[in-house]
Amino acid sequence: MQKTVISELEQKQAALDLDHCMSVAVGAAIAAGNIVNACLQPGAMSAISDKTATDPVTEADKECERVVLSMLTRAFPACKVLGEEMSGGDGRLTDGATWVVDPIDGTANFVHCNPYCCISIGLVVRRESVLGVLYHPATKDMYTCIRGRGAFLNGNRLKVSSVDVIERALVVTEMGSQRSADWIHHKQCAMSALINLKPQAIRCFGAAALNLCQVAAGRAEAYFEHGPYAWDLAAASLLCSEAGAAVTDMRGGALDLCGRNVLAVVPQLQQQLLQALRDVPAPTS
Amino acid sequence: MQKTVISELEQKQAALDLDHCMSVAVGAAIAAGNIVNACLQPGAMSAISDKTATDPVTEADKECERVVLSMLTRAFPACKVLGEEMSGGDGRLTDGATWVVDPIDGTANFVHCNPYCCISIGLVVRRESVLGVLYHPATKDMYTCIRGRGAFLNGNRLKVSSVDVIERALVVTEMGSQRSADWIHHKQCAMSALINLKPQAIRCFGAAALNLCQVAAGRAEAYFEHGPYAWDLAAASLLCSEAGAAVTDMRGGALDLCGRNVLAVVPQLQQQLLQALRDVPAPTS
Repeated sequence: MQKTVISELEQKQAALDLDHCMSVAVGAAIAAGNIVNACLQPGAMSAISDKTATDPVTEADKECERVVLSMLTRAFPACKVLGEEMSGGDGRLTDGATWVVDPIDGTANFVHCNPYCCISIGLVVRRESVLGVLYHPATKDMYTCIRGRGAFLNGNRLKVSSVDVIERALVVTEMGSQRSADWIHHKQCAMSALINLKPQAIRCFGAAALNLCQVAAGRAEAYFEHGPYAWDLAAASLLCSEAGAAVTDMRGGALDLCGRNVLAVVPQLQQQLLQALRDVPAPTS
Repeated sequence: MQKTVISELEQKQAALDLDHCMSVAVGAAIAAGNIVNACLQPGAMSAISDKTATDPVTEADKECERVVLSMLTRAFPACKVLGEEMSGGDGRLTDGATWVVDPIDGTANFVHCNPYCCISIGLVVRRESVLGVLYHPATKDMYTCIRGRGAFLNGNRLKVSSVDVIERALVVTEMGSQRSADWIHHKQCAMSALINLKPQAIRCFGAAALNLCQVAAGRAEAYFEHGPYAWDLAAASLLCSEAGAAVTDMRGGALDLCGRNVLAVVPQLQQQLLQALRDVPAPTS
């Protein structure tokens, strides 16, 4: 698989050495993580500026993105970049090799000094993820994956949970940050459908990419959400599939990184989750 | 306040030196925390035995409780003890001085190797908390409080958040572990009411006592839940009120440690939360 990817890349554009990509992305994630950890110290919280009231963006967000993007563009000048906090650009994913970056996934947690947040760096080629790096600064956990080569946490191979009954499953979702009427209705329906499925536990931890890491690491059996953007999904969706999860949209179709919805689930519970979510109306706006 | 408490205790029973109580409780919490941390290492998860499918209890739970209760009863033979995993006893709180212990708050997280769980040790006299110790083993955060003397995290005084608009508030609740029809209905109504309030963020982290610690530490503006037992509330409800939170039941009445519902909120948002929850039906079973 890895050789295929490299070969395709070689035909289409400047060859990318995925090991070199990984090395640079890991370094960039640690650099941004150091900024995050400094802000999480008591009394050090970064100034908060708002995108919307429910979607805060901090100076630290912007600083992390500057650091990550400058390291990536210096090492890979031929690659495009797409970041959550970028100004300019149209924010769309093209077919070209693109670094897709969320400088701080879980910003609302971060501004509340809650350490459940991470840096997400994905490399996407022809709209599909080929490499992912996710760094959880508070625990120094480094999640890495290259398509076809498996998923790893601090160098140890990851495998999804073997739990095969919903009564023992921990399922993660989010109530999100959108508060328009149709989004609220969607979230109410989704949460109602989930509790009707009677899982052991329902969690809303507050960071999409880090939620996907939980599934990859076997600490959750499923995560679904309508809302995440490409920068939330690019790295962690690959991590999940490389760890053995079924990763689709919430209807069971092929994951579209720009489709703003995802279901990552252990294969043995996939049909139950899809069935439970079948009648949940998608938000229309 | 502290002197009043000691004086009442002296009149009613063997005098309790609250500083000595704190010292022993902190030691017990660390001893239990070491067991928790050992289990959270990769591959070390404790054997799981079930109370109910959604309420697992592990060997580690029982071992932690044995360790904590034996340290407390050896140091304070005149005190009663009440623990989540205790067999025998009627599980009820009396007027006597009682150590109320949750050996692992957040067991479903714990069995999924999620480190969001804590040890909770409260000292309750005449059904009111006078001392609390909460230990989060993964971060080594030690939360402590004595009635009238303030709330502390690793020795630093805690104060609740100053956020005063709901649009910037992070509110924590839980979907719980009960899956009967009326509990499901209650949880659906409560979550719907909460999102209709349009807070910045809604979280379900999965551990009642540790959720209360978030409010006390200013990392969340509110936490409410129908479900927690006295062992979830004894230590952390005092921590919250000592940090400046308004701590009541979900209708705004005096907190009953055995009433199985709590609202802890920054005072400036209390009325909005109470209003939002007013029409949520309580579970009847």
